[in-house]
Amino acid sequence: MKLKIKRLKFLAGRPVSMINQNTAKKMSLHVGDKISIKNKKGKRLISIIDIISGFLKEEEIAISEEIRKILNLKNREYVDVKILEPPHSMILIKKKFGGGRLNKKEIYEIIEDIKNNALAEIEIAFFVSAICNNSMSLKETKNLTKAIIRSGKRIKLKGKIADKHCIGGIAGNRTTPLIVSICASTGLIIPKTSSRAITSAAGTADVIETVSRVDFSIKEIKKIIKKTKACLVWGGTLGLAPVDDKILKIERIANLDSTAQLLASILSKKIAVGSKYVLIDIPYGKSAKVTKVQAEKLRLKFLKLGKAFNLKLTVILTNGSEPIGNGIGPVLEMKDILKVLKRDHPPKDLEDKSLFLSAKLLELCGKSKKGKGIEHARKILDSGQAFMKFKEIIKAQEGTIKKLQKPKINYNIISEKNKKIKHIDNKMINNLARILGCPEDKAAGIYIHKKKNNFVKKGEKIFTLYALSNEKLNHAKIFYKKNQAEIIEFR
Amino acid sequence: MKLKIKRLKFLAGRPVSMINQNTAKKMSLHVGDKISIKNKKGKRLISIIDIISGFLKEEEIAISEEIRKILNLKNREYVDVKILEPPHSMILIKKKFGGGRLNKKEIYEIIEDIKNNALAEIEIAFFVSAICNNSMSLKETKNLTKAIIRSGKRIKLKGKIADKHCIGGIAGNRTTPLIVSICASTGLIIPKTSSRAITSAAGTADVIETVSRVDFSIKEIKKIIKKTKACLVWGGTLGLAPVDDKILKIERIANLDSTAQLLASILSKKIAVGSKYVLIDIPYGKSAKVTKVQAEKLRLKFLKLGKAFNLKLTVILTNGSEPIGNGIGPVLEMKDILKVLKRDHPPKDLEDKSLFLSAKLLELCGKSKKGKGIEHARKILDSGQAFMKFKEIIKAQEGTIKKLQKPKINYNIISEKNKKIKHIDNKMINNLARILGCPEDKAAGIYIHKKKNNFVKKGEKIFTLYALSNEKLNHAKIFYKKNQAEIIEFR
Repeated sequence: MKLKIKRLKFLAGRPVSMINQNTAKKMSLHVGDKISIKNKKGKRLISIIDIISGFLKEEEIAISEEIRKILNLKNREYVDVKILEPPHSMILIKKKFGGGRLNKKEIYEIIEDIKNNALAEIEIAFFVSAICNNSMSLKETKNLTKAIIRSGKRIKLKGKIADKHCIGGIAGNRTTPLIVSICASTGLIIPKTSSRAITSAAGTADVIETVSRVDFSIKEIKKIIKKTKACLVWGGTLGLAPVDDKILKIERIANLDSTAQLLASILSKKIAVGSKYVLIDIPYGKSAKVTKVQAEKLRLKFLKLGKAFNLKLTVILTNGSEPIGNGIGPVLEMKDILKVLKRDHPPKDLEDKSLFLSAKLLELCGKSKKGKGIEHARKILDSGQAFMKFKEIIKAQEGTIKKLQKPKINYNIISEKNKKIKHIDNKMINNLARILGCPEDKAAGIYIHKKKNNFVKKGEKIFTLYALSNEKLNHAKIFYKKNQAEIIEFR
Repeated sequence: MKLKIKRLKFLAGRPVSMINQNTAKKMSLHVGDKISIKNKKGKRLISIIDIISGFLKEEEIAISEEIRKILNLKNREYVDVKILEPPHSMILIKKKFGGGRLNKKEIYEIIEDIKNNALAEIEIAFFVSAICNNSMSLKETKNLTKAIIRSGKRIKLKGKIADKHCIGGIAGNRTTPLIVSICASTGLIIPKTSSRAITSAAGTADVIETVSRVDFSIKEIKKIIKKTKACLVWGGTLGLAPVDDKILKIERIANLDSTAQLLASILSKKIAVGSKYVLIDIPYGKSAKVTKVQAEKLRLKFLKLGKAFNLKLTVILTNGSEPIGNGIGPVLEMKDILKVLKRDHPPKDLEDKSLFLSAKLLELCGKSKKGKGIEHARKILDSGQAFMKFKEIIKAQEGTIKKLQKPKINYNIISEKNKKIKHIDNKMINNLARILGCPEDKAAGIYIHKKKNNFVKKGEKIFTLYALSNEKLNHAKIFYKKNQAEIIEFR
């Protein structure tokens, strides 16, 4: 059926179309049914139906902005609309749900249908459930990784391409900008794409955004890397693994992690940018994402899958029980990074971890001899080369380290007694930072004055809370008071 | 935040609200986030956010019709809108997903959140996945049943209340109107609520709708039952188990069946109408929903759960390999029923099964002595009492058996050889009927002239296809040609 576009400018987070209730009746369409919309050039997109009355005419269809952009549709343009039958891939998902194994063709079909919106979010939820309950074999995981790479864009670069990834979960812990600056100084190509914060106070992309742009096109990234050997950008707009983004969105709702999806998600993005040498950091421990046993299992899976793709992988297990660095929040974490780079009272734990991981990557790539990586990395840092490299990258990304935002208000949390700190909880400190406004309020967050095993005297500062509004600061104070025992433990 | 209702009259199948993009920014709301909307009387409803620009003003909110009705909102009325945090019940769902057991309080919390839309469809999908993968214990199933009853309305009736239920899947098989007519003739109270077709050619509600209304309020149903001892209505509008309806909708997408959900779904509706005596029919076999082994397991679970609720249950396993009756489709199935009631060339299989099940229910309720039920039921049928009762019910439901719709076109499928029929497939014959227009096109469907073990001579009719449009008939002819070997097998 031919229907005329009526522009309504709405976003639904997924392709949604609205049609008049009489049109729906004529086409036997019900709310939630899927249709395929074809534009003049023959390009198709699958969309979900909402039904509207009194506002749209019978011959009209209102499409969400997601659809308008992809199909490049104009107001009052005609499109061809057809009802869509439930996709065959739902049968495959049910097979996996029942404990079956999926072959390459079947996994490709599911991923292709997710890409084309032939599978709705609820159907993707069943796919996520299926692979969480019935773990994928190495072969299945390999095919899932391939399918995800195939569904996205790739970046072709020349040179020795290296990358690092951390599975996350640790407050602060902003090693990436340091590792990239140190390692790119040796001539390695590091096309680093990062995420924004999901449940934490800041992602690397949020932190870099305090000093430069992070949203670039593939073409722009190539230019930045040509100039500086590296980049520090947000992966969200690049389309390297659009299917992965959709699956992650669903996984987050249930706070589920499928190991196969985690592996495929990480490695597909590395392969898409042509990385050959990859360092993976798995922080484990109390208040981290995984226990040591889980971390060890994950390490073996990473190594096996990496081998299947001919990657040179080093997988490091690091202690992730406590926050790393002193600043929690985009600006505060950037300040920690700059302290390390400027050799100006750097947080020791952040510096040590960054040097350790840089060393491992330099050794993996043959830039340092075995056992000599730390020395090499420290030399690059101490000589100011790393700082130079960082400024180069930020400049190429149209930024400057001079433009850091300032917090409006702060509040000190003072110790009431002489005590020794036993533990600061990653999850709770992240929650506190979120309440203060992170990651949207760049300058909001927490400065940790004292850490595990430090003594605090009565009247000494433990934390300083930063916020942009009194309202948020007050909320944070209430949260702190209520959850103090879970945020920080004393001996 | 106070926002003003702008009426847009749209249906989204779930409570959806649209707000202006600047309002979204102010409230830090993103597409897919949940909000709570409170009306003047303080009644709250949870809704999902879409974002729109250029059409809505900043102080406005457009709500889907589902919300308008529940909160009884008027155009330009102000509502109080708040962002909603992810529900605690998602943690409980994750617990079940991981194989844990849920206690009564936890199950109640999940069901309450589904009822109040605090859990979104994707989250319900994870709940469905969890209970499909990690089957619920008897105790959990009992609590699920209780929770579902608690979330819905109830009907209070006096007298000896009986009911029957079939798990479905068999083409034709319209025993319910016959069983209800026979058993209500003995004075039993049968508040029968039925469903419409989901994947089959017709549900009991679709069939009854060919001769009377089926959409009544609880108040109206009580009146009908007071007059006639029974009713034959659609359960969809009654709100006996609204949560169950939501869960079933999600299950259907993945074509999944959780046994716990199936048991809770069926028994909760019986308990909600106060039934004490319940007959359950489980058809098994080739092209049925379950195998004989599965049917036997299900039978035991029904008995255990029934006992927990003090129900008198009889669970019967019946052969469901082949369609039952000759007509497939609402009008054609009603014709079969009327033939049985009028004692006018009745389809023997339909009559036999209906008498058998009626006998079991009469014996269960003590209306017949053990072993004498068949005789009793046949007497009621032969004497015309059942027909009288049926006409009484239909009249009370504002209908008449004289107003059956007629099909516009028909087409005979003729045998090309002398053959003996080995099997007619339930699923395929249902698919064929759907293509002919069932269940919306009431008079569409299939008349089965010859059944399993019948001989057909060359030139004899096997099926007659009925449709309301040539287009649908042609589609059905193409489908038949393509899938003939799967629809009907010969020896």
